[in-house]
Amino acid sequence: MINHQITIKDIAKQLGISASTVSRALKDHPDISDKTKTKVKALAKELKYRPNAVALSLQSSKSNVIGIIVPQIVHHFFSSVISGIEEYATDNGYNVIITQSNEIVDKEIKNCQTLVSSRVDGIIVSRTKHTTDFKHFQNIIDKDVPMVFFDRTCHGLKTDRIVIDDYRAAYEATEYLIKTGCKKIAHFSGPEILKISAKRMWGFRDALKKNNIPFYEELIINADNFEKGKEAILQLIKENNLPDGIFTVNDMSAAGAINILKSKNIKVPENVSIIGFTNGLVSTITDPPLTTVEQNGFEMGKKSAEILIKRIEDENEENIPYVNEIIPTKLIIRSSTKSL
Amino acid sequence: MINHQITIKDIAKQLGISASTVSRALKDHPDISDKTKTKVKALAKELKYRPNAVALSLQSSKSNVIGIIVPQIVHHFFSSVISGIEEYATDNGYNVIITQSNEIVDKEIKNCQTLVSSRVDGIIVSRTKHTTDFKHFQNIIDKDVPMVFFDRTCHGLKTDRIVIDDYRAAYEATEYLIKTGCKKIAHFSGPEILKISAKRMWGFRDALKKNNIPFYEELIINADNFEKGKEAILQLIKENNLPDGIFTVNDMSAAGAINILKSKNIKVPENVSIIGFTNGLVSTITDPPLTTVEQNGFEMGKKSAEILIKRIEDENEENIPYVNEIIPTKLIIRSSTKSL
Repeated sequence: MINHQITIKDIAKQLGISASTVSRALKDHPDISDKTKTKVKALAKELKYRPNAVALSLQSSKSNVIGIIVPQIVHHFFSSVISGIEEYATDNGYNVIITQSNEIVDKEIKNCQTLVSSRVDGIIVSRTKHTTDFKHFQNIIDKDVPMVFFDRTCHGLKTDRIVIDDYRAAYEATEYLIKTGCKKIAHFSGPEILKISAKRMWGFRDALKKNNIPFYEELIINADNFEKGKEAILQLIKENNLPDGIFTVNDMSAAGAINILKSKNIKVPENVSIIGFTNGLVSTITDPPLTTVEQNGFEMGKKSAEILIKRIEDENEENIPYVNEIIPTKLIIRSSTKSL
Repeated sequence: MINHQITIKDIAKQLGISASTVSRALKDHPDISDKTKTKVKALAKELKYRPNAVALSLQSSKSNVIGIIVPQIVHHFFSSVISGIEEYATDNGYNVIITQSNEIVDKEIKNCQTLVSSRVDGIIVSRTKHTTDFKHFQNIIDKDVPMVFFDRTCHGLKTDRIVIDDYRAAYEATEYLIKTGCKKIAHFSGPEILKISAKRMWGFRDALKKNNIPFYEELIINADNFEKGKEAILQLIKENNLPDGIFTVNDMSAAGAINILKSKNIKVPENVSIIGFTNGLVSTITDPPLTTVEQNGFEMGKKSAEILIKRIEDENEENIPYVNEIIPTKLIIRSSTKSL
């Protein structure tokens, strides 16, 4: 008795039923008859059965691990979300394994396969910029592995979604530029294929429209990283078409713009005001420090984990309606914009 | 025949031997007798057996996945190493799952358990600042799961190690400050318990000594992040003890120092020269852009993956001597130092 720990298999064998039935009986699964439950529990008690976490995990296929797929772990936003997921997960007895797609669809597909093979209990995803076919995600859903999407979601897939109101955040940022006196405002945008980029662009456009500020097509430039931010500003300078305000799709783009403006002795915010997006470490290091949108990635991560774990742990999870949760954003005022 | 794919189990059953023996026979494992190998291969041929990657994985316990444990994924250095690992791994048919410890030993232990449960083929680790007991790593080694350590390694553990020569890199950086005219040089250091921090500090000290520059104990200040970099400079200014050169243990510390110096109208490099360590994105965004040490994280990652995969794939891996590989560093000269 001392050497041999009673297992679910032992109980199953003795009663002539399957291990899976024993496991579910012990967990009071609704599918198992009361008669069987009573039989199983009585024998478990008699044999002094003690649940073994690892064994339970094997029997019930539960690993207490959450998998994550994000485009890039090094970006402040995604790493904040991961931190939020990890905090909530750890507080609730789950560990977290992370994979990154590097914006490559094939890698995203491989990551899905790897996470499923690693037997994670659920997966939280922000898809690549280029993912248009969602089959690899549907496969996971079909395997009854719950999925929650954040930030970049998949239209048409039956999953929970956690997002920010990109449109509203961009609208408010642009309006702030207008309120501080800007009259010729550019937008450094992300790829239109990404809904979040498109929404930020529309928020920008509508804020201009609402406030009777002219909109110029040539002042919307695709520039979603440091290098492109620099190129975009160089282009505007070369065309003698410098705006007096810029709203950028992310902080790195703004940092690139600031980098070139300073090198040309063009003052920020006196000559050109700039608002970024993300509130990453970069926004405190630029000179001047960057006014930007706080995306609340950490909150988004916590919420994603909360919703996923609820689904993982609910026996009747298919009855929980899918949520579309919106995390509030906030404009962080620093020194790259003028005062009101 | 069309519906049923012949499996290793089928062959085993027909020959009355174990599936594991069949698998190893097909792979020409030295433990299996020639007689058995011939028998197995003949039957496999006759039954038109075709290896199934997933089945092989299950039989041989090979998942083609590498696990990673790092302190923080958001730091440029660690994310560069991860990128290097991923590139080499992907080129060689492996995928990568990442866990972070957040410098918490308990989390590092949990990550070890999670990666082992996920059945990774090998693990690449940089340990936490606080890890002094290596039992959780020894457990993995005892399970015959190969491990490679990089950057922060474990003295006494039988593993491969990939590091940079922190001492030499710090020595060269400090010497550069001296060559450009600095005479009163401070070091913003990392925690002494971390060997890499201690080595950087000793490189700094020895460069001063070799060049007859005075060493002041109060000019070694523990400041290994942005906030601490700011506090350290504020402290030196308050004490009226500003140096004319600073070598910092990482870029964020340097960025913090620059932040305060600029706010006090103290010119960099004219009044205070600064050299950082890492060559992360931050070093191109500071104003002025930061002279710093390129740690070659990407190369380190590729090398770690190369060495790990060699161990994973070699049947006689226990005969491969453990390596202590040193990745070369390079001083990247930017504008936070004076010219020679």
